[in-house]
Amino acid sequence: MNQKIIKVAVAGASGRMGREVVKMVLGDPELELVAAVARTVPNTDAGRLVGMDACGVNVTNDLELALVESKPDVLVDFTTPQSAVVNTRLAIRHRVRPIMGTTGFTPEDIAELDKQCKAEGIGGLIAPNFSIGAILMMKFAAQASKYFPHLEIIEYHGDQKLDAPSGTAVKTAELIAEVREELRQGNPNEHETIEGSRGGLYQGFRIHSVRLPGVFAQQEVIFGAFGQTLKIRHDSYDRAGYMPGVNTAVKKVMGYTGMIYGFEHLID
Amino acid sequence: MNQKIIKVAVAGASGRMGREVVKMVLGDPELELVAAVARTVPNTDAGRLVGMDACGVNVTNDLELALVESKPDVLVDFTTPQSAVVNTRLAIRHRVRPIMGTTGFTPEDIAELDKQCKAEGIGGLIAPNFSIGAILMMKFAAQASKYFPHLEIIEYHGDQKLDAPSGTAVKTAELIAEVREELRQGNPNEHETIEGSRGGLYQGFRIHSVRLPGVFAQQEVIFGAFGQTLKIRHDSYDRAGYMPGVNTAVKKVMGYTGMIYGFEHLID
Amino acid sequence: MNQKIIKVAVAGASGRMGREVVKMVLGDPELELVAAVARTVPNTDAGRLVGMDACGVNVTNDLELALVESKPDVLVDFTTPQSAVVNTRLAIRHRVRPIMGTTGFTPEDIAELDKQCKAEGIGGLIAPNFSIGAILMMKFAAQASKYFPHLEIIEYHGDQKLDAPSGTAVKTAELIAEVREELRQGNPNEHETIEGSRGGLYQGFRIHSVRLPGVFAQQEVIFGAFGQTLKIRHDSYDRAGYMPGVNTAVKKVMGYTGMIYGFEHLID
Amino acid sequence: MNQKIIKVAVAGASGRMGREVVKMVLGDPELELVAAVARTVPNTDAGRLVGMDACGVNVTNDLELALVESKPDVLVDFTTPQSAVVNTRLAIRHRVRPIMGTTGFTPEDIAELDKQCKAEGIGGLIAPNFSIGAILMMKFAAQASKYFPHLEIIEYHGDQKLDAPSGTAVKTAELIAEVREELRQGNPNEHETIEGSRGGLYQGFRIHSVRLPGVFAQQEVIFGAFGQTLKIRHDSYDRAGYMPGVNTAVKKVMGYTGMIYGFEHLID
Repeated sequence: MNQKIIKVAVAGASGRMGREVVKMVLGDPELELVAAVARTVPNTDAGRLVGMDACGVNVTNDLELALVESKPDVLVDFTTPQSAVVNTRLAIRHRVRPIMGTTGFTPEDIAELDKQCKAEGIGGLIAPNFSIGAILMMKFAAQASKYFPHLEIIEYHGDQKLDAPSGTAVKTAELIAEVREELRQGNPNEHETIEGSRGGLYQGFRIHSVRLPGVFAQQEVIFGAFGQTLKIRHDSYDRAGYMPGVNTAVKKVMGYTGMIYGFEHLID
Repeated sequence: MNQKIIKVAVAGASGRMGREVVKMVLGDPELELVAAVARTVPNTDAGRLVGMDACGVNVTNDLELALVESKPDVLVDFTTPQSAVVNTRLAIRHRVRPIMGTTGFTPEDIAELDKQCKAEGIGGLIAPNFSIGAILMMKFAAQASKYFPHLEIIEYHGDQKLDAPSGTAVKTAELIAEVREELRQGNPNEHETIEGSRGGLYQGFRIHSVRLPGVFAQQEVIFGAFGQTLKIRHDSYDRAGYMPGVNTAVKKVMGYTGMIYGFEHLID
Repeated sequence: MNQKIIKVAVAGASGRMGREVVKMVLGDPELELVAAVARTVPNTDAGRLVGMDACGVNVTNDLELALVESKPDVLVDFTTPQSAVVNTRLAIRHRVRPIMGTTGFTPEDIAELDKQCKAEGIGGLIAPNFSIGAILMMKFAAQASKYFPHLEIIEYHGDQKLDAPSGTAVKTAELIAEVREELRQGNPNEHETIEGSRGGLYQGFRIHSVRLPGVFAQQEVIFGAFGQTLKIRHDSYDRAGYMPGVNTAVKKVMGYTGMIYGFEHLID
Repeated sequence: MNQKIIKVAVAGASGRMGREVVKMVLGDPELELVAAVARTVPNTDAGRLVGMDACGVNVTNDLELALVESKPDVLVDFTTPQSAVVNTRLAIRHRVRPIMGTTGFTPEDIAELDKQCKAEGIGGLIAPNFSIGAILMMKFAAQASKYFPHLEIIEYHGDQKLDAPSGTAVKTAELIAEVREELRQGNPNEHETIEGSRGGLYQGFRIHSVRLPGVFAQQEVIFGAFGQTLKIRHDSYDRAGYMPGVNTAVKKVMGYTGMIYGFEHLID
């Protein structure tokens, strides 16, 4: 097959995920890095930034300019929830397919961005998680919640993570809430002697966020019923473990139109 | 709906599972206990045996006689692997639908018993596990093995269990082997300094059987890939937790023909 | 050794723990049940109440009267946090050694009750947990916290439990706080998008309370450090598993003076 | 407290462990790097070598000269078994406390080095394992086995590891066997339908070795008793996770006299 090389811009290129994306793009002959954007390290070669040979692409700090000048096919954005919506709009306006690895989108945002993608005739992806293991965990959890409506989610991340619960936990909770019977779990008269100990309440079930050094990203969904417990757990140890998923997303986004929310819709 | 009451015989009625079955049958107005068979406690009222009021059915110790005299619709059999095949044939010959909660059947046995069921126009079920949670664990494990071919199974049971691995572990392994790509895991040069430490080898993956007091029945299937681990775990704490499954089986076996192997085929 | 039989009164005798205590006392020839108190089932024989033979002790509903008339050596009380302090004072006033299996005591309460015990020259015990496994978990957790000051506690109980966190979790947290260096874990700028998801804050670390049907009592203390995680977990499956501990406490409380808080001080 | 800064020399500074030690020393204001020795990278600044800012200490390749000139309090040595004994003697002769992270010492070597340390009035440490978490796991497991003699060990490593069980599992088993009552666990009539499924037998208990990609080094010791399970688990994700242990050793070695074998003796 005579496959066209896909031109990729990376936003958040100096962040921990961004660096892995730069490495992944530079390492795949079917992809070409055409721009790397980061606030803090202008005028560094993007290859050097990630400990590889110079690649001839300098890091810049103006996303719009970078998109206009380098004309990428795809933007991979691992910036912040604060800039997520703005960056996505910008990419679509320049007909660059956005792959957004950030949280911070409301359902209204997603609906609006889907319309914009369709208007421009391009695809897009918003994905809190690019891990196939995490996707299976979410799918299995949603399936199990049909039989076991009593459940809680516990997620574990590094102790410097700012937001709780994690994007993956919220996404899991949403997928469960779509299929689980409505139920407010627990004793209606339960009370906390230490505020917050029962966790965050979402659609009648609880989410707990653990933050500890040494943990990368883990999540367990626990289902309880008379005489039995079912647990589905995913442990991520390494950022690089997400890159096969991002790579798949970059290639698949070329083949459809509209904004997809959730990497799980791109597999199987 | 004018539902006919289902007449049930229980074999192994004095065992720990058998007692739970007797209780379950006596507690469901849609079911009627017509016989209870056990080697060791003849002439005891079956209700009294399980700590309930007398029910008018005495425990006997001759299964064939009990089937002939009480003409049950269904036999629920929690005896031993040694008597499993014989009892199943006996039930079918008397046109009693067998629900066998034991292990000890070869694929040839199952094929033969299926033919016999069909010849008599009745249904039957062989199920090492009646737990909906265990069934989901097995289903999810088989699904995950398509994406994560590297896996091991660890199962935990009480320290007096005689056979290893458990029927559930073997059943899980079979379901996985049906869909997983062929793969001999581990380093080809690995060696054991303590024999058996790498567990039992089944189709290229390993099964480990833990036996400890205080444990009822637990199983974990662990999938490993670069940078991530996926775990699916089911913990059973109580024999009574299986009874909703046995109850469902008794009712569903009335509605089909042939021998089914695995309770999972009775739930969607 | 010519050991005197110890006379025991049980308060909360009709509760789930209370029934186990009644059974345990009736089953130990070194102990004698002299009174059983419960609000709801007066005039039942205490043996019958727990499914054993009649023992000649009727359940009554007035604790003080029971103590006066039966002159027990020890009161084992599994009532409620609301009556905990009142019942303890009452027992001490009548020179009956209180073994309190409830929560609901402030440090001031304990100090006061200790004085009263000493004034009367008797021993007493307040213990949220009588399980040797749980005690070891707490001891190990406190030891580990000297080396790993970053930790979180997750405890799991049945979904009808009223208070969170559990008494065991609070006790564990107290033991840890005594020896752990002061530290406010997590990112100072972290924020919850679902309130409570980060759990309850105690002395700079977090406690999470999971409530699910099918769970009896479980707790895990997780320590995180760069590149490693240490976990100490205790799972209780059965109320009866506490009785060896209660039995030990009844015998040991005869041999010391003053109120002890925590069963761990009675072992080793 | 006016604590004196401890002067540290590192031997094997360019190896994987040595680099981590250099980083650790440079990052702790209570320690001062005074020498870094490595065969292969002379005249490189030690800070630069490990990807940090220049620290003003050049790597040299003559250990004795380095000790003489920089007068360190402590030598941390992650070289090879071949140079282990020679380097240790050299350090002691210059009254530098040796912390040896290598194997290759016979019991006779250790006895001799202990005498030399005492003659010079200094401390020393030979330690094959500096993971505080692993040490605590082993200690806690041995302690728990006094109360819970029924146990099994499950250890997890990468799928290319050659030997099973791991050295840590064997060491744990030895420590347990020293204090646990003699007991052959399990049913004497148990039988394996898949050979090896019950794991490796050591002193009456079982060891299971799991090998999966994505796993670095994990171990769980599980204790079972009526109604309860106690689990102690350690997960290692990264070589750098050993550095807190090395840091502790550097500080503690200043406070005792004689050669200690085994890091576990430095933590209470």
